[in-house]
Order: sequence, then structure tokens, then C-alpha cells
Amino acid sequence: MITRSDVVTAMRRIDGRVRTTPVLAAHFNTLPAPVALKLEYLQHTGSFKARGAFNRILAARENGRMGKAGVVTASGGNAGLAVAHVARSIAVEATVFVPETSPKVKVDRLVRLGAVVHRSGERYQDAYEAAVKHADDSGALFCHAYDQAEVCAGQGTLAIELERQAETLDTVFVAVGGGGLLAGVAAAFEGRVQVIGVEPESSPTLAAALSAGRPVDVAVGGVCVDSLGATRIGDIPYGVAVRAGVRWLLVDDEHVIGARQFLWDEFRVAVEYGAAAALAPLLSGQYRPEPDERIAVVLCGANTDLIDLG
Amino acid sequence: MITRSDVVTAMRRIDGRVRTTPVLAAHFNTLPAPVALKLEYLQHTGSFKARGAFNRILAARENGRMGKAGVVTASGGNAGLAVAHVARSIAVEATVFVPETSPKVKVDRLVRLGAVVHRSGERYQDAYEAAVKHADDSGALFCHAYDQAEVCAGQGTLAIELERQAETLDTVFVAVGGGGLLAGVAAAFEGRVQVIGVEPESSPTLAAALSAGRPVDVAVGGVCVDSLGATRIGDIPYGVAVRAGVRWLLVDDEHVIGARQFLWDEFRVAVEYGAAAALAPLLSGQYRPEPDERIAVVLCGANTDLIDLG
Ligand SMILES: Cc1ncc(COP(=O)(O)O)c(C=O)c1O
Ligand SMILES: Cc1ncc(COP(=O)(O)O)c(C=O)c1O
Repeated sequence: MITRSDVVTAMRRIDGRVRTTPVLAAHFNTLPAPVALKLEYLQHTGSFKARGAFNRILAARENGRMGKAGVVTASGGNAGLAVAHVARSIAVEATVFVPETSPKVKVDRLVRLGAVVHRSGERYQDAYEAAVKHADDSGALFCHAYDQAEVCAGQGTLAIELERQAETLDTVFVAVGGGGLLAGVAAAFEGRVQVIGVEPESSPTLAAALSAGRPVDVAVGGVCVDSLGATRIGDIPYGVAVRAGVRWLLVDDEHVIGARQFLWDEFRVAVEYGAAAALAPLLSGQYRPEPDERIAVVLCGANTDLIDLG
Repeated sequence: MITRSDVVTAMRRIDGRVRTTPVLAAHFNTLPAPVALKLEYLQHTGSFKARGAFNRILAARENGRMGKAGVVTASGGNAGLAVAHVARSIAVEATVFVPETSPKVKVDRLVRLGAVVHRSGERYQDAYEAAVKHADDSGALFCHAYDQAEVCAGQGTLAIELERQAETLDTVFVAVGGGGLLAGVAAAFEGRVQVIGVEPESSPTLAAALSAGRPVDVAVGGVCVDSLGATRIGDIPYGVAVRAGVRWLLVDDEHVIGARQFLWDEFRVAVEYGAAAALAPLLSGQYRPEPDERIAVVLCGANTDLIDLG
């Protein structure tokens, strides 16, 4: 479990390593007050994941736990890119395991960031197990995509930043996959700002866990699957979500696709589906803010194909 | 001619009508200090042009010069979109003249913003003359794309905003077409910040005017032609540029294309070529800043086709 003080520590640790991402005050015709859009997709490697990866890896180095074998993770997506970026920036080796089905374009991106990439097994779970084994065998530092305290605390630094940028805040919307982003933001904002986790109907890890009373596996699919498609919420995120009284909303693909297109049409902001998801409940009217409610939405990633945005 | 005080007046006039566009502090490996990227492409209709259009049209309304015939402009590009947006937002009619060669997609965008669009003549000049005639005949307010005092002063409001956002500034880079943006920024920053106008080698309106000692026609072409392709710098922009001691740099298409791709790859910022031009001299090494020079670059538009960004 993590608390705000872990996030504050992370903030100091990664200071100067990550970009302070700006906020756009956005007026929507259908909403009473402007919404603070946290443009976190402007972060290194195009998502918030660099925050958690820096915090995890720099903390290990401080504790003398960074050996010759470097770091290892399992992810063909944003977590993998972030770990590769962090490793290169402090000159250690990154090994990334991806499923055999990972498209070449994702593997190429990792290689360009200097990572050693191994294709292993058919499903993500196979790549994950191979990465854990590699860590055990080699002594490399294993970096989880969401379920490690330093990773969650690192993601939460965007909340502290946001607090400094947007005077007052009542409610913040974040997308949920494995829940690392949610955990960090909820820990940072506990007792201060209501956090709402938004997830696709097609991969409701948080909603399923909250109704089961513990993390449970869910089937995953839909347009957000490459970023929000974790099959189960992490133990740390689940614990923080319960403790901090996080709320959740489910969105369908149609509204996610609409929100992404809207961000391009109205703001020339190109994000990935997983990021647009967080805005969808506000645009669709599913969530109706109070007249004076101060809302922020985290636009958390832009590793997206642009062809369909037109 | 305009001065800083015209820009300050414009700032008050258009306050609340335009978006305060955020700034991203960007670190480049090849540059000694971070560069402040002014994310002006997040503005209404995707470019800074909304600022000048608001200032022009609201000033006319204040002066009782806004009649039933509304406003008219000649532009299939960002100026036309901005005028249409402003007109709709204050419920007056916008008439926009475009050349017969204007692609349907541009016309459609204007129509979606509620403008009445007329196709007239083969060249931009024909559309321009038709728009002026329409203004004379109907009493509609003519909105120039760059060579009117209120238009230039409106564009300059982004400089006052930038000054508040970025503590100290030595040098600011802006792209130049007809020079309205340059004029506004140079008037606002006169005696305070060095302004550098960046233009494509293939349409050097400012450079040609400064060496001829007066605005002269130039041939235009290249990848920025739809935004920076004015054939001659405006009289007001030329006058301000000379008075304020503006400097200029020419960039070639290859570096503009590279700068645009770089902004996407490194920052997930998708801008049009005319906006990327302003960053090109810093990325290519053509401009070498002093170690402690505080630089800002205006990313002024994102009305771009995304297909080629990958
Ligand atoms: C853009 C984006 N948004 C959200 C998420 C979900 O993050 P988490 O797994 O921490 O819930 C991810 C995870 O990869 C992501 O890449
Ligand atoms: C994106 C963009 N940048 C720069 C310019 C040039 O502006 P100006 O004509 O005021 O020099 C334009 C003009 O249309 C534009 O659309």
C-alpha cells in the first residue's frame, strides 16, 4: 500500500527527469465549468508510465539494488517504452519481454530505445513469466507495469503536479488498466479530491474487484485493450482504491471513440483510446457535474495510430 | 502601425473568448537550456488566427460598425476558419471567399462552422478581390488575414500570455506568412524580447521586404504554402518588423518536415508544417543559442493531415 507521502518522495526523486506536463482549461458547451485537461501524453515516451518507471528504477539504484544485469519488464506497450527510456537515460540495460504476437512496429520502437527485446509465448502472461524468470536468473531489477509500490507512487506524481497547476479541484477522472495510475493519483489525493476510475465495459478490472471484494480476473477486449487491457487489477491499486474511496464508471467503445475524435476536432490533441476513455463520461453526459464542480481529466497517453483521426 | 498598447487593449477585449494556451518546457539534447514551446495550436479552430479575428470583429462591434451583413474574408485556410468561428460565437453571419481550386474538405469545414462560402476565381487574389467587393457592396466588415491593425494586435496577445507563463525570455521564434503574427508578437515584445521571424526559403516575404526596403511580391511554394504562402508581407507587419528590429531566418522544406516529425516522435504534438517551421532552425543547428539564452517557439497551428505522421 502507498500513501501520499510515498508520492511526495517520488516527486523529489524523479524531479528533473520527467516533464512537467501542462494543463489546458477546456470549456465544453455541455458543461457548466471549464475542465482542466492534464496533458500527460506530452510526457517522455508518450505516456505517464515514465513517472513510475523512473521512481522504481531510481529507488532501486539509491538502495544499491541496481546490478550489472540492469532492468527487465514485460510489456509491448507504454510500460515497456517507459522502462527502456529510463534505463537508457541512466545508462543501464533494459530487457523487455513481449508476446510473440507483438507487432513489429512495437518491437522496433523498443529496440530504437536501446532495449533488448525477447519474444516469448503467445499471451502476455507468458512474457510476464519469462520476465520474472529472467529477473530471478540474472539479478536484473523487475519492473512491474502497475503492481509495485514505487511504480504506483511514481504515477501519482502527476497528481501533485496537477494540484499546483489547477487552483482548486473537486474531482479527477483517470483511466484504469491494472490500476497503477489510479493508485498513485488516489493516494496523492486521498481526503482531498474525489478520484473516479474510468474503465471500458470490456475490461472492468476495478469494478469487478470492488464488487467481488478482491481483485478478480476479467475477460478483456475493446478499443482500449492495448493500454487498459490488464486482466486483473493489482493488489496495491485495489487496496488504495478501497481505502481512498475511489469511485468508478464504465464506458463503452462508441463513446471512447467519440471522445478521442472530439479531442482532435476541438483541441488538435491526438491521444490513444485508453486516454480518451477518461473524458468519455463527461462528454456523453453519463457523468453530470455540479454547477461549481472543479474537474480535471488526465489525458494519459498518445501512443496511437493517427490514420483514423483524419 | 501598432504598438504594445494595442496588444494590451486587444488582450482585454478578447479575454475569455480565446483559450489561454499552455507552455511546455522542452529539453533538447542538442540545446543548452529548455525551450518554451507555446502550444498555440490548441487554440480555437487550431491556430492563433482566432485571436486576431476576435479582436478585429469585437472592436468593430464596439464601434458600432457591425451591421446586418456580418463579416467577410478571403481564405480557405486558418484565417477563414477563425473568422467563421468568431462570427458564429457572436451570432453574426460570416461570408468566406475561396479560390475555385480550394479542396472540398476545406470548404466543408467552413460550412460546418456556419459560414457562407463562395468560390471565386482561380487564384487567391481573385477570391480576395471578390471579398473586398462584397464588403463594399454589402457593408459587411472585411477581415484581412494579416494586414489590419486589430488583426495584428490580436495575434500579439499570445505574446503577453507567454510573458506571464515563461519567467524570463530572450528570444522568440515565430513563423511568417503575411506577417500578422510576427507584427503582433514584435509589437508586444518591442524592446523586451528579440523576435525572429522564420520563413520558408520558398516564400521569403519578410526577408525579401527587408532587403528591398519595402514589401515586395515573391514567388511562393513548398510544404508550408497553405499557411505561410502569402505572396507579400503586409504593410503593417513590415513597418513593425523594421521598427522593432525583428530578425529573420530562412528554412528549407527538409528541415521543416524533420521538425514536424520530431515534434510528433518526441512530444506527441501534431502540428502543421507552417508551425514546425519556427522550430526548424533550432533543431537543425542553423541557430545556435547562447548557453543561458531563454528561448520560446510559437507552435501556431495544427490544421494538418495526420496520415504522413505515422
Ligand atoms: C495510455 C495509458 N493509459 C492508461 C493505462 C492504464 O494504466 P494502469 O495499468 O496503471 O491502470 C495505460 C497502461 O498501459 C496506458 O498506457
Ligand atoms: C499555422 C499558421 N502559421 C503561420 C501563419 C502565418 O501567419 P501570418 O500570415 O500572420 O504571418 C498562418 C497563416 O495562415 C498559419 O495558419
